[in-house]
Amino acid sequence: MIDLRSDTVTKPSTEMRKAAYEAEVGDDVYGEDVTVKKLEEMAAEHLGKEAALFVTSGTQGNQIAVLTHCKPGDELILEANAHIYLYEGAAVSALAGVQSRPIQGIRGAMDPHEVKQAIRADDIHFPETSLICLENTHNKAGGAVLPLENMKEIYHIAQESNVAVHLDGARLFNAAVASGISVKAYAEFTDTVQFCLSKGLGAPVGSVIAGDHTFIKHAKKWRKRLGGGLRQAGIIAAPGITALEHNIERLAEDHANAKILAEGLANIKGLKVINEIETNIILVDVTETGLSEAGFLEAIKEKGVLAGSYGTNFVRFVTHLNVSKEDIQTTLQKITQTLV
Amino acid sequence: MIDLRSDTVTKPSTEMRKAAYEAEVGDDVYGEDVTVKKLEEMAAEHLGKEAALFVTSGTQGNQIAVLTHCKPGDELILEANAHIYLYEGAAVSALAGVQSRPIQGIRGAMDPHEVKQAIRADDIHFPETSLICLENTHNKAGGAVLPLENMKEIYHIAQESNVAVHLDGARLFNAAVASGISVKAYAEFTDTVQFCLSKGLGAPVGSVIAGDHTFIKHAKKWRKRLGGGLRQAGIIAAPGITALEHNIERLAEDHANAKILAEGLANIKGLKVINEIETNIILVDVTETGLSEAGFLEAIKEKGVLAGSYGTNFVRFVTHLNVSKEDIQTTLQKITQTLV
Amino acid sequence: MIDLRSDTVTKPSTEMRKAAYEAEVGDDVYGEDVTVKKLEEMAAEHLGKEAALFVTSGTQGNQIAVLTHCKPGDELILEANAHIYLYEGAAVSALAGVQSRPIQGIRGAMDPHEVKQAIRADDIHFPETSLICLENTHNKAGGAVLPLENMKEIYHIAQESNVAVHLDGARLFNAAVASGISVKAYAEFTDTVQFCLSKGLGAPVGSVIAGDHTFIKHAKKWRKRLGGGLRQAGIIAAPGITALEHNIERLAEDHANAKILAEGLANIKGLKVINEIETNIILVDVTETGLSEAGFLEAIKEKGVLAGSYGTNFVRFVTHLNVSKEDIQTTLQKITQTLV
Amino acid sequence: MIDLRSDTVTKPSTEMRKAAYEAEVGDDVYGEDVTVKKLEEMAAEHLGKEAALFVTSGTQGNQIAVLTHCKPGDELILEANAHIYLYEGAAVSALAGVQSRPIQGIRGAMDPHEVKQAIRADDIHFPETSLICLENTHNKAGGAVLPLENMKEIYHIAQESNVAVHLDGARLFNAAVASGISVKAYAEFTDTVQFCLSKGLGAPVGSVIAGDHTFIKHAKKWRKRLGGGLRQAGIIAAPGITALEHNIERLAEDHANAKILAEGLANIKGLKVINEIETNIILVDVTETGLSEAGFLEAIKEKGVLAGSYGTNFVRFVTHLNVSKEDIQTTLQKITQTLV
Repeated sequence: MIDLRSDTVTKPSTEMRKAAYEAEVGDDVYGEDVTVKKLEEMAAEHLGKEAALFVTSGTQGNQIAVLTHCKPGDELILEANAHIYLYEGAAVSALAGVQSRPIQGIRGAMDPHEVKQAIRADDIHFPETSLICLENTHNKAGGAVLPLENMKEIYHIAQESNVAVHLDGARLFNAAVASGISVKAYAEFTDTVQFCLSKGLGAPVGSVIAGDHTFIKHAKKWRKRLGGGLRQAGIIAAPGITALEHNIERLAEDHANAKILAEGLANIKGLKVINEIETNIILVDVTETGLSEAGFLEAIKEKGVLAGSYGTNFVRFVTHLNVSKEDIQTTLQKITQTLV
Repeated sequence: MIDLRSDTVTKPSTEMRKAAYEAEVGDDVYGEDVTVKKLEEMAAEHLGKEAALFVTSGTQGNQIAVLTHCKPGDELILEANAHIYLYEGAAVSALAGVQSRPIQGIRGAMDPHEVKQAIRADDIHFPETSLICLENTHNKAGGAVLPLENMKEIYHIAQESNVAVHLDGARLFNAAVASGISVKAYAEFTDTVQFCLSKGLGAPVGSVIAGDHTFIKHAKKWRKRLGGGLRQAGIIAAPGITALEHNIERLAEDHANAKILAEGLANIKGLKVINEIETNIILVDVTETGLSEAGFLEAIKEKGVLAGSYGTNFVRFVTHLNVSKEDIQTTLQKITQTLV
Repeated sequence: MIDLRSDTVTKPSTEMRKAAYEAEVGDDVYGEDVTVKKLEEMAAEHLGKEAALFVTSGTQGNQIAVLTHCKPGDELILEANAHIYLYEGAAVSALAGVQSRPIQGIRGAMDPHEVKQAIRADDIHFPETSLICLENTHNKAGGAVLPLENMKEIYHIAQESNVAVHLDGARLFNAAVASGISVKAYAEFTDTVQFCLSKGLGAPVGSVIAGDHTFIKHAKKWRKRLGGGLRQAGIIAAPGITALEHNIERLAEDHANAKILAEGLANIKGLKVINEIETNIILVDVTETGLSEAGFLEAIKEKGVLAGSYGTNFVRFVTHLNVSKEDIQTTLQKITQTLV
Repeated sequence: MIDLRSDTVTKPSTEMRKAAYEAEVGDDVYGEDVTVKKLEEMAAEHLGKEAALFVTSGTQGNQIAVLTHCKPGDELILEANAHIYLYEGAAVSALAGVQSRPIQGIRGAMDPHEVKQAIRADDIHFPETSLICLENTHNKAGGAVLPLENMKEIYHIAQESNVAVHLDGARLFNAAVASGISVKAYAEFTDTVQFCLSKGLGAPVGSVIAGDHTFIKHAKKWRKRLGGGLRQAGIIAAPGITALEHNIERLAEDHANAKILAEGLANIKGLKVINEIETNIILVDVTETGLSEAGFLEAIKEKGVLAGSYGTNFVRFVTHLNVSKEDIQTTLQKITQTLV
């Protein structure tokens, strides 16, 4: 089965398993797991932030950021299709008591002017805007890379209004590899960043959040409340280190494969690729196949190919390290056969 | 000073004060204030609901509705410029832990198809949609009347998905008087309704929420938690009764005055009325006066006329029972003089 | 019917009704109700605080204090039978996300040493202690007056640990009249105070919270979120002013009546007064009457006397301005007749 | 260094590391990690519950239980020194909006009669009691085993009042091994159970919650919101399986070691063992050594022994699988030397 549903399905490599097997561990609640510490230091170094914290998922990292930056009754500004807004169970409201203010972006990028307009004035009727969340690459926008300039403009607007900026960088390394701009350069225009080890980087579990020392101190307590304070977490941090050491540059292969796949799909009758391929995500309109998206997914599954639903008539393909160039060719053949 | 900032500035009439003076009261926490009870029964009767509850403000009524209909992590759908979303301090998230999902409407009315699309499917990543909030008349849309048919369609969609509908009817009586459709007819396509006694109806304080007995039972406990459980509340319920007895039909005068005012303003050079006048609200673009909205407001204030800011370059005028037809003419003269 | 259930049942006097009738009012959301402002200034003056805010109930005042002083995940220390803990629907947790840490007191007074022990150290597992709530007089302890010295000691402990102190002074004026210590002297050992106008002071509706300017500024926004931002609130603030002008000193009569009633009850066979009478509350154990508390209450109700349940086998009598010395004698006669 | 601070410091055995290395994994958010599924089935089987869910910590398991059983404004009853109350950052209030009602127990066991009294009646002022939390073994009570009969009585009281019972069984297997009563027998008197894999059972990370299918379905969504939805979690579930397969019965050794250690400590001049040793926790009063608890801990640390602080003048020793019988003897020698 060629699994193109998501880069979250990537399985740990032998090297990662070996790293876990050999990891030096300790009780991380006591701050004694050297492997976790090493991962956190590497992550902070990559991002150019003072400190970092290992968390069990991207959602946990994002939620801790919101809980730490905001207080109940605050408002956060984010793009209308942001993961935090659509796919995290309304947790920013449920856990942090924060209202989301979505702005429709273009390829995931909000217009800085609209962001500025959305920041609330001081008025008894208004929540206080305390956070802007960005997402780079932007999942729902098809892995679109947020332009550095866009991030910079928004960050400056935020700073003028004393509003923090958090970056949901679940796939930030994809953005960096695709654009040639370092993750540190992106992180410069943020107060805090979250990135996932368990997506394209291929680690089995975990994400990291980074920011200044004060942020991380408070974040740690919120992580504890959410139940993310682990014991011998080195077992899962070790594959994360492997991921950072070996799997960043190779994301370029996933992007190349995505381009090949997109071109191939575009040539299959009935399929329309709707996004520009910058990284590893391909969005396809299947309307003209005469199949519903569920029908299409079922049909290709029978041929050995898995993709994901993306709303009525749309499906999503995601390339990753468990999918080779040959798999891409096979995928195209299988789908072609399916639609004949 | 002619005060056209809002219909909330209306002062209680002598009749209302007399009603307060003479009101039979009791301890309403013990359910012993007969005046409050009478008001609640009148309100329930008007709306065709099983029961009603006196609350101290429209915001309190709306928040109690959300707290009662929803649980933390739920999502509620509302129009992008709804009062609940923009002007209640993000309280639905702060107090109820609920995420708002705004949909841009036309004259305050959401497209039923878009509402349907926004209701969440059952998925581990998604909040559950438990409430749709409507607003009639719609304040930010310039006192626009929500079409009955629109409410009906949305209500049916809601029912199919087991989602409740709450109506923020702060100015529902304006809608009824303007459209000739009874408040009961509007209320038919809702589960719960809130309307204000202290806006166009002229009472000094208070609103009412209505729904079925189970809703009201739970609402009462949330009202207590919010500190809205009052003692001898008949003192303020009595003017509310007066309002319902005498001030409904006369809203037609406010609407007539609003039309006259709007026509007059439209004829003043530099002013552009941007909304269709259905009820008592007039929105005006002052850009071409060369004044900022603050400058414009300051200038007419010096001439004895108060209006409200409505964001950059826009101002709002609201007619109400403390503004006579003569005041409207004076207002037009004063503004004309101001802009000469 | 002689109603001794609570001092909340007091009905507004003619003077209060007249004050309401004549009150100069405005839109208090715009800060334009001079009567409300006057009440707030009087209250702040009484308490020696910078500013005050009119709220619709004691519960609302207490909840706003907690919402303003604390953030989610904090802990507040209070006496195990405090009103905030037992009778406010768990709102400090529901609305403010705060955990209560009850300490069993003696006559409502917590041991300062235990308070000190309960303040949390800095530890990843611990909430942060951000507030101590006191209650004076203490309702559940039978209207007990908190000793000034106790408040002073606790306040100093709080200050050393950077913890705020809020006083639930629903019946603070009773404490002051009974002890001869001014409300200002009590308020000195607090950061914020709430007192009720609608209990012994006899106003129909409302309470006041007081503190410094920053506190009141934030409190105002929380009041708005809870729906406590009113319009022409002078209608209910005016009787509150009357209450402060005329009904403070007369609380001494209620206390004298309570002593007479307590002595009389103690002489009735089967009744045991269980509290020392310092103010206006009498707690009675009815076990030896052979009646349940519900049975006892029903029996005296048939004779024209109302009292309140106070848990299994216990009932509560509260004296107030609608109960005269003659009523007390009648009450004793009726109860004696009941138990013969 | 002999580390007796907690059984959380246990390091994964080679066997566990090997299990992680070889674990068959999948994306558990998609329900495709067979190792996680196997662990969950084993756990459900052990506890006699319909279903189970892997979570990243005991705190996460407990919090998910509270979030799933309760709604904001509810009250939960627990023992005054329960871990949920004292050591989880007030998360039940911060995340779930629930108020805790602590009852002082004896050796961790609440008096069922007091529990019954604490369940709230139906009253507008009261929160609703929706949950009782038990803890077995009880950490703060020195690893005390909750008597089965006590659990049974409380469970019946709960059922009569339609209140759920959750068991914080972080060390439930210690209770079972010590008492000879199966974990299933204990679990019978609960609705839901949480137990830790990462304490005495020795796994590096994780806990399990168990209950009926409906509970687990809702729990899963709360786990996602808290960021506990993991990807290839088999890597950490596999050592958990090893723990359940090999490390249950051996807890008896820890208990035996604890008894030896306690007897030895009791014979050292200046030390007083204050708890009955039922499982693996020993609480010691160091007052008569003339050292503060911090001083004592520092002194024994210099000799190569680690124990934990347990409040002013008290320290805690916990035996576990990384501490041998020889280590116990060494510990006693070192401490004796320290105090000479």
